[in-house]
Amino acid sequence: MTDASSPARFDMEISSIRYLNPFPKDIIVSSDAVFPAESRHLQLRFHERLREALRFRAFLKESLGQTMNGLGYLHVETPTLFKSTSEGAREFLVPTRRAGYAYALPQSPQQYKQVLMASGLGGYYQFARCYRDEDHRADRQPEFTQMDLEKSFATGETIMEDVEKVVQRAWDAMRDEYVLKDDGTSFIPVKRASQQQSLDGSSSTANPSNISEYPHISTPFPRMKYDDCMTLYGSDKPDLRIPNTILRVDEKLSADFVGMISHLESPVVEAWKFSLHEDVDRREAQTFLRGFMENLHKSFHQNPDGAPQALVYDSSKPLQGFSALGPEGLGALQEAATPESGLAELQDGDMVVFQARQKRPHQGGSTKLGEFRVALYHAAIEAGLLERDNSFRFLWVTDFPMFTPDEEVDVGQGGSSGFSATHHPFTAPLGPEDVDLLLADPLKARGDHYDLVLNGVELGGGSRRIHVAKMQEYVLRDILGLDKVKMAEFSHLLKALRAGCPPHAGFALGFDRFVAVLGGASSVRDVIAFPKNNKGVDEFAGGPGRISDEALETYHLQLKKRK
Amino acid sequence: MTDASSPARFDMEISSIRYLNPFPKDIIVSSDAVFPAESRHLQLRFHERLREALRFRAFLKESLGQTMNGLGYLHVETPTLFKSTSEGAREFLVPTRRAGYAYALPQSPQQYKQVLMASGLGGYYQFARCYRDEDHRADRQPEFTQMDLEKSFATGETIMEDVEKVVQRAWDAMRDEYVLKDDGTSFIPVKRASQQQSLDGSSSTANPSNISEYPHISTPFPRMKYDDCMTLYGSDKPDLRIPNTILRVDEKLSADFVGMISHLESPVVEAWKFSLHEDVDRREAQTFLRGFMENLHKSFHQNPDGAPQALVYDSSKPLQGFSALGPEGLGALQEAATPESGLAELQDGDMVVFQARQKRPHQGGSTKLGEFRVALYHAAIEAGLLERDNSFRFLWVTDFPMFTPDEEVDVGQGGSSGFSATHHPFTAPLGPEDVDLLLADPLKARGDHYDLVLNGVELGGGSRRIHVAKMQEYVLRDILGLDKVKMAEFSHLLKALRAGCPPHAGFALGFDRFVAVLGGASSVRDVIAFPKNNKGVDEFAGGPGRISDEALETYHLQLKKRK
Repeated sequence: MTDASSPARFDMEISSIRYLNPFPKDIIVSSDAVFPAESRHLQLRFHERLREALRFRAFLKESLGQTMNGLGYLHVETPTLFKSTSEGAREFLVPTRRAGYAYALPQSPQQYKQVLMASGLGGYYQFARCYRDEDHRADRQPEFTQMDLEKSFATGETIMEDVEKVVQRAWDAMRDEYVLKDDGTSFIPVKRASQQQSLDGSSSTANPSNISEYPHISTPFPRMKYDDCMTLYGSDKPDLRIPNTILRVDEKLSADFVGMISHLESPVVEAWKFSLHEDVDRREAQTFLRGFMENLHKSFHQNPDGAPQALVYDSSKPLQGFSALGPEGLGALQEAATPESGLAELQDGDMVVFQARQKRPHQGGSTKLGEFRVALYHAAIEAGLLERDNSFRFLWVTDFPMFTPDEEVDVGQGGSSGFSATHHPFTAPLGPEDVDLLLADPLKARGDHYDLVLNGVELGGGSRRIHVAKMQEYVLRDILGLDKVKMAEFSHLLKALRAGCPPHAGFALGFDRFVAVLGGASSVRDVIAFPKNNKGVDEFAGGPGRISDEALETYHLQLKKRK
Repeated sequence: MTDASSPARFDMEISSIRYLNPFPKDIIVSSDAVFPAESRHLQLRFHERLREALRFRAFLKESLGQTMNGLGYLHVETPTLFKSTSEGAREFLVPTRRAGYAYALPQSPQQYKQVLMASGLGGYYQFARCYRDEDHRADRQPEFTQMDLEKSFATGETIMEDVEKVVQRAWDAMRDEYVLKDDGTSFIPVKRASQQQSLDGSSSTANPSNISEYPHISTPFPRMKYDDCMTLYGSDKPDLRIPNTILRVDEKLSADFVGMISHLESPVVEAWKFSLHEDVDRREAQTFLRGFMENLHKSFHQNPDGAPQALVYDSSKPLQGFSALGPEGLGALQEAATPESGLAELQDGDMVVFQARQKRPHQGGSTKLGEFRVALYHAAIEAGLLERDNSFRFLWVTDFPMFTPDEEVDVGQGGSSGFSATHHPFTAPLGPEDVDLLLADPLKARGDHYDLVLNGVELGGGSRRIHVAKMQEYVLRDILGLDKVKMAEFSHLLKALRAGCPPHAGFALGFDRFVAVLGGASSVRDVIAFPKNNKGVDEFAGGPGRISDEALETYHLQLKKRK
């Protein structure tokens, strides 16, 4: 195999040459040639890193699959020509030749895998292709692969343990074969790196000085509740590499200052401290911060809760640069500081960011200060003012709210309640008190859902499911307010639950993202052979294409006239 | 795992019982309960054979994948949201929110895998979901799984050898774990069979007297050219278990007889001998044959080339029952008989079937006599008049015609030539003489295509591909007569071939069918967790569903008004 052999030097004695195919003169190949997405075939051929990414992907897939088999999960394929159900995301439709009828591509094998549990399977897994017709922000693809699993007579606890085993073993296998580069990227097998080192010391990709072993990871991974994540990190997928937690400080601030940063009536105000590399002086820090604030996305400046306010600690200035807080301001704040916030210890050049938000329970995936925190951290690394942290910090996030107000979700279930299931409507309530809350105050009920997060990236999520038909019916009809038509979409699932379905729980690992994060790729596009761009277009093959009149005719459709 | 443990007897001491879910009284479970397709969850739960089929499927998948990895093929996932191309089958469309644009679901990863070869990959494989919007005759599913592979710098020879290795190893692994039942079905692991034998000798599923080991198979598999298959077996996927080959006999027959069985001017007339079990006497044979002919599908009786004529050898009758052939008829025919036809040796009760067809080169997948042969053979086994042959006869069929007249294909490429590529338009011509024939008489050109056949079932097919852009362009435009719009659909492939693509060849194994045939299932539906019926309907989940007005609106579509 030409692509399986390691690079090495050979002497070749050529006895004959056979002409196989012309190579056109307009394709110019040099060691630093960069080809565009339209020429994916040339990217795959000449961008070594992309080829390595595909091998790395296959390597991880095999490792994950072996562990799943070993743990007794049975590989089962489920259909992708499903039907439309109000599960939560916008689904692609596949029209059929029966007029007015269409399949839907599944957003996940969720319903089928629950039916497998109701059918008496002990465990199931599959590398499943999933489809969501979403706006392709945030590095998403309209089709993606997840390692999907489910286990009967299991709780979330069982599943988290199994996922930890699977990830740990894949990680250990990876450590044996791959090394990590200084910039946090990988894809270079150990053997190749060491060979290049000895044969071609000049190669920058395998310079012995800029590679290191992947760190060890250990299980169990730490866990944190959704509410704590939102409070301390302003995110439901916190990047634990970013130092210092968020601290609520509105009680320590003057009304003047609060009024300056927000028009809200008695808002929550939070503060976060951020330090650059110790060699960076206060002037550099100020310049960097000014540039960062100028380039900040308008959603921060135009936030109706108020814009972020960032101050730099400067011992040469009155009140160390914190005069906006009033004479007692900084002291009162520092007195109340938790050790994790780091606010008690301020040095020249340290920044403190203040941000207001509405006083209400957390909902959604992040606060504005949480987003600011991530943006500022990465900007500092980009600017070379902070050292890259090549550690890998896994985290389980648990105790999510079962439901989220409709304004926070993309599509939801479209019921009449004004809110939708946070993840999907099959998640079981966490404890008996949450079952009670379903009746009393559904938005306060927590679900037995758990997300696996690594360095600020959600690698996957899962939950214990509702396994009792009456409870599932109640959630769909009475809590979410689905009408008869939407209820009927779920009749197969209710039928299966009704037949004595055991308790069960499961998980889905976003495989594209898993490969990307472990290999240090900046986009899932770098670990997919033929990805689509952020408009859902395959720039290489040119899909989607124009629908022909003949095809529309076949499916009894016509284009809607523009009004 | 509840489903991974072997059945055995235990003494249980119950300390407490916890109520997990109600079980409704209207589901009646008995050892012989048979549930309908709408209750797939109960079929999966209570039909032991179906559960075993899913395990058998997972077992074979793992075995095939391991061998592929070992042979150096790299696992790569390719997109399923592709675009419409005139490759040969009707494609499902997936409308997008860009008005008038749609993805197409791929009929196979063919084009992407060829691009991978053009991209410098040595070998690729994938268990790929494929989609064809066909009429669901002949036990086909609108979505199916194939083990898809491709190798660069390979010829058909290389691929056939690799496929033989992969199949042989899967077979050997299966022989170690599974046993075969008298009725040709399996799915029973050896361990379980032997345990049931010792613990529960009464069980009919594992009665020691009706199970045996799978036979050994050996490679290389025999090979036969398409033309020979059609001439000798009347099929391009011959079931080698069916005895006696077809013999052309029109030169030995009287004009009277030929005129009686066909209105064609000088047709080809072929004969085939069929013997029942030696205990069956001529009367039983006659009764069976009469019943068979009466129930024969109308396409045989209404065949414009003439209906089949079957005579039973009966030593008590004048001219042994062959008086229709005239006084010299049977003798002349027997004199000319080849040993393989068996016609020289006729005994009481033997049948000889005569069938006329047009004198022209073979095209399509079968002759009417070939179809008759298969139907009669299976009817005899069903009727208990012939012993079931539990052997497994693999065969490579090669040297297919590159092109087939449009009346014989389902969809084709829709070019102006009046014919379409027999398999797909990327198949390379077999030899230099076939390249010449492309110009002179394309319908005579043979392609370097090979089908893997087992017991009359096509398990898969592959070919060496055209790897030179100019040749591919010539075939698409000049031979098939594709117009500019259809040519443009293939621009990505031509672009990739043009960049110096190496010679390459590949194969696709129909995985559902492979599992079904090896396990003795009568339908692929029995080895798919949630299959669709022959109308493409998921009877369990109820897909496809009605398209909502809202969804049509989203995709800028409306239903076409009926005229």
